[in-house]
Amino acid sequence: MPKFKTIYLTAKRYTQGISETLIALIEYLEKNAVKVILDQETIAMLQANRVKKTTIYNLSNNYEHFELSKLKPQCDLIIVIGGDGSLLSTAKIAADQNIPIVGVNRGTLGFLTDINPEYIESIGKILRGNYIEETRFLLNASIKHDDKIINQDLALNDVVLLPSHNNRMIEFSVYINKQFVCTHKADGIIVATPTGSTAHALSGGGPILHPGLDAIVLLPMFPHTLSSRPIVVTGDSHIEIIMNKNYESYPNVSYDGRKLVPIPSSGKIDIKKHINRLRLIHLHDYNYFETLRVKLKWENK
Amino acid sequence: MPKFKTIYLTAKRYTQGISETLIALIEYLEKNAVKVILDQETIAMLQANRVKKTTIYNLSNNYEHFELSKLKPQCDLIIVIGGDGSLLSTAKIAADQNIPIVGVNRGTLGFLTDINPEYIESIGKILRGNYIEETRFLLNASIKHDDKIINQDLALNDVVLLPSHNNRMIEFSVYINKQFVCTHKADGIIVATPTGSTAHALSGGGPILHPGLDAIVLLPMFPHTLSSRPIVVTGDSHIEIIMNKNYESYPNVSYDGRKLVPIPSSGKIDIKKHINRLRLIHLHDYNYFETLRVKLKWENK
Amino acid sequence: MPKFKTIYLTAKRYTQGISETLIALIEYLEKNAVKVILDQETIAMLQANRVKKTTIYNLSNNYEHFELSKLKPQCDLIIVIGGDGSLLSTAKIAADQNIPIVGVNRGTLGFLTDINPEYIESIGKILRGNYIEETRFLLNASIKHDDKIINQDLALNDVVLLPSHNNRMIEFSVYINKQFVCTHKADGIIVATPTGSTAHALSGGGPILHPGLDAIVLLPMFPHTLSSRPIVVTGDSHIEIIMNKNYESYPNVSYDGRKLVPIPSSGKIDIKKHINRLRLIHLHDYNYFETLRVKLKWENK
Amino acid sequence: MPKFKTIYLTAKRYTQGISETLIALIEYLEKNAVKVILDQETIAMLQANRVKKTTIYNLSNNYEHFELSKLKPQCDLIIVIGGDGSLLSTAKIAADQNIPIVGVNRGTLGFLTDINPEYIESIGKILRGNYIEETRFLLNASIKHDDKIINQDLALNDVVLLPSHNNRMIEFSVYINKQFVCTHKADGIIVATPTGSTAHALSGGGPILHPGLDAIVLLPMFPHTLSSRPIVVTGDSHIEIIMNKNYESYPNVSYDGRKLVPIPSSGKIDIKKHINRLRLIHLHDYNYFETLRVKLKWENK
Repeated sequence: MPKFKTIYLTAKRYTQGISETLIALIEYLEKNAVKVILDQETIAMLQANRVKKTTIYNLSNNYEHFELSKLKPQCDLIIVIGGDGSLLSTAKIAADQNIPIVGVNRGTLGFLTDINPEYIESIGKILRGNYIEETRFLLNASIKHDDKIINQDLALNDVVLLPSHNNRMIEFSVYINKQFVCTHKADGIIVATPTGSTAHALSGGGPILHPGLDAIVLLPMFPHTLSSRPIVVTGDSHIEIIMNKNYESYPNVSYDGRKLVPIPSSGKIDIKKHINRLRLIHLHDYNYFETLRVKLKWENK
Repeated sequence: MPKFKTIYLTAKRYTQGISETLIALIEYLEKNAVKVILDQETIAMLQANRVKKTTIYNLSNNYEHFELSKLKPQCDLIIVIGGDGSLLSTAKIAADQNIPIVGVNRGTLGFLTDINPEYIESIGKILRGNYIEETRFLLNASIKHDDKIINQDLALNDVVLLPSHNNRMIEFSVYINKQFVCTHKADGIIVATPTGSTAHALSGGGPILHPGLDAIVLLPMFPHTLSSRPIVVTGDSHIEIIMNKNYESYPNVSYDGRKLVPIPSSGKIDIKKHINRLRLIHLHDYNYFETLRVKLKWENK
Repeated sequence: MPKFKTIYLTAKRYTQGISETLIALIEYLEKNAVKVILDQETIAMLQANRVKKTTIYNLSNNYEHFELSKLKPQCDLIIVIGGDGSLLSTAKIAADQNIPIVGVNRGTLGFLTDINPEYIESIGKILRGNYIEETRFLLNASIKHDDKIINQDLALNDVVLLPSHNNRMIEFSVYINKQFVCTHKADGIIVATPTGSTAHALSGGGPILHPGLDAIVLLPMFPHTLSSRPIVVTGDSHIEIIMNKNYESYPNVSYDGRKLVPIPSSGKIDIKKHINRLRLIHLHDYNYFETLRVKLKWENK
Repeated sequence: MPKFKTIYLTAKRYTQGISETLIALIEYLEKNAVKVILDQETIAMLQANRVKKTTIYNLSNNYEHFELSKLKPQCDLIIVIGGDGSLLSTAKIAADQNIPIVGVNRGTLGFLTDINPEYIESIGKILRGNYIEETRFLLNASIKHDDKIINQDLALNDVVLLPSHNNRMIEFSVYINKQFVCTHKADGIIVATPTGSTAHALSGGGPILHPGLDAIVLLPMFPHTLSSRPIVVTGDSHIEIIMNKNYESYPNVSYDGRKLVPIPSSGKIDIKKHINRLRLIHLHDYNYFETLRVKLKWENK
């Protein structure tokens, strides 16, 4: 009996050979007595990319399929095929429905998608229970105006304040647990989890936070005050970012580099750790530091 | 006889007391046999900010006034009252008309506006010829598509490639003198003059280039390749930045952080030193390093 | 009745007016029914700096005095007068004897010595119990060769591997919880606590770790691999730094920037959190972020 | 007829197969009617590394050999076999005797040693005149005390002020063309040429200066003032670094990371561009940016 009985399968982005990978994986799962449910959007993605009609017919007729947003706990595992970006968009519902997730990359090792696509046998190991489970926390950010919430969402990597359609600086103040930290004139600020510390924040000079660390990093982007530095605070910190009234940059808030929400003049971003955590499945030989070494090219030749 | 006979006076931004400063300066100049010409926009700015009607009446009726863009060599000095940003927007025409420029700040020392407003006598010194003249070069950047120029402009500080309405990375290649340098996946790139090296580029970790240096710095913004570093090349370098076709970030080009021009897919930015230089007037006690020390708070207490 | 009955008083470094400050403080403490014990070295320091003989006579004859290393729990508070450096050298014994410590600076706010010397009344507040107590952890580092410990000591700020008498690079490997992280060719590495994150590590581009964070930062110094970044790991991590045999730089290990111990070829540094924590006393209005703002000159004028 | 008639051959460091490489190169040169002169130290290096006696006998008996310091213009080319470090130690005499130099690496591309050892034919191209010549400037640094020169030397990469046997900070002031720049409390400072900008300075966050740029970069190491930044000045700048009297760190000055000279309390380092330049030979396909891409791992996979 497989450890997981119903698996939700999703691939967000078209890449060469994706339909073959999907079909091979589905056949393998069925052979192993796993019920497969397909992401509705994955079928749509294949259609949009002119994958053979019979393939799409087979997929949409032979397999249950529904949108990710309708995912319920009848599934006991999510398999994401793609890069870290694809997994990011699945993280929110997976955390809230308490369904573990495993990421299969499309050829390039990801920080989150660490299963190599050539070794479908890796999925077999996971089905037989040979895996480790790790959890990651998400940020829950609300955009407020006059103390009313005008938007609220989750992010696994980062919540970023950034200018919209020009490059004028933004002026804002940062508070941690109601204590004033500083006022920034800057291009914006990145608030990242340990998971997000190796994403956008890393390009801006932020530190690497080990995923086991219960901490959040605040990284001002292009700060005018040259002595500004990234600050790492405890994971249970309450972070508030308050807009200065006199700006002309119409800033946005981005969640995991995707959804963009405009924040009004004198608005506020309120950030806390989300109550539910993401369950991430790895093979036993998973090694965080090896991923760092490969992706950041640390090896000496 | 004053060294300068016809002076063009401009103030771009409203600040408390600006009209009093302007009037005092005009009176001083007239007493010293200088003909004053006013920037049309300065009068408009005062009107928009509800400065007393009589003031505006006096200014627009008693003084010749025209737009900066109509400035001709009949003027032999431009006085800019405001911050570095105000001087930036004047630099282009001043360079092309070969008219020297002096910047009077509004209380906070600027890198370019180094005359303190309290000492109107400083302007007196300049009228009597007690000054030093320094020149700064500008960048001339063309945006091209299929080898046609679709936009062209000048910048005293920097030409910046940046994303428009989201924060997806941009992919582009950099060439110097037709030699391939590298392909960047990044938030953008800053190409700055020595003058601009202490502006936006400095906030992003760029080096300070002494104004006497004939050099250009290229600073990738949030580059994915962590071993990327700012590169400083000779001032006569021909810099080309070529967009990668498959991007989704609709990048813009900004000139001195102001004008924004969208750059098409597979477009190109072509950057060279401009043929004309800006003539900048300072008092004899001007000291670049002192400006650095004050503005970057280098002094130890 | 004062909250603290026996106070050990220490000042490590001679500064103008230090003897007057000491005497005023001693008088104040006695008036408040506190027994004062003096640091033997403080008396020696005053003698070496030609403070008036009567002062020294009075101090050494009227007050019990012994060396810091003989400090026992009969003292229930340590007052350090001086900078952060002076407090560092007291931290070790204070932690192991479980005696709280309060730092009085000599005019310049310190990260650890946050009581201003002009307000002796602050000490009064503390005597009356109006204070907050915070704890900080220390690092316990052993230098090993062939699995024998050849040196072992504590550090409140940082343990640093650095070259000795030349500037040749050091080659070493880093392990965290027995997992290989990377091999560095570098000038050295700083392993810092949150307390130490605002000391030497900050000058090298390290992040600020909030003192409430249970974390350790590893910061390579001038690493040859340009994609190296500071790594922040959990406070209970076991850090091992293993020397490469073929080096010519005779590296040293420094504890809190003071004691220097040579490390043999193929030696190893073994770093863990120390079992005892330092108890640090602050006034109720203590604000970590304000200290950052003042010391890092974050305020905008 | 070869373009070069007398070639001085030097290899500083023992590596596996170095004697075979040397002999093959000598045979090739003789076959091409070139007179070979050997570096005395290269023979000594082979002896110290127990290379076969007959090899050493053949080399020392059949070829003229003398020390590098006795090199005179009778040689019209120097071939350095080894890494960039080996070439550095030859640069000084090559510049002053006006003899061009070509660097053959031992398997790993160097910034200066860009001829691959497997292609001895590359040397053939150079003999036939198929090469490009580039020049690089050196720094001439004098250490002075009470206006007396106590040491003077040249550096192709950098002149570095660094602490000697401990890690206490150094306090010093920097002047450029007799203008005060700033006072640093730091671990030291690197003053680098464009050639040196990709050596030690690059690891410390310095910019890459294109070799064609006539500029010098000043990079403070671990500066206490967090708003310190690298400064790039014109190549003809006169740089003075003056020690503060009250330090306890007994700083040294290093030339190209090798020779170390102690600098006395209140001593001064005086740095100017050296009058003679180094002539560097490359093949026609030499491409500076390709070297950067390879060595800094900029290529995307």
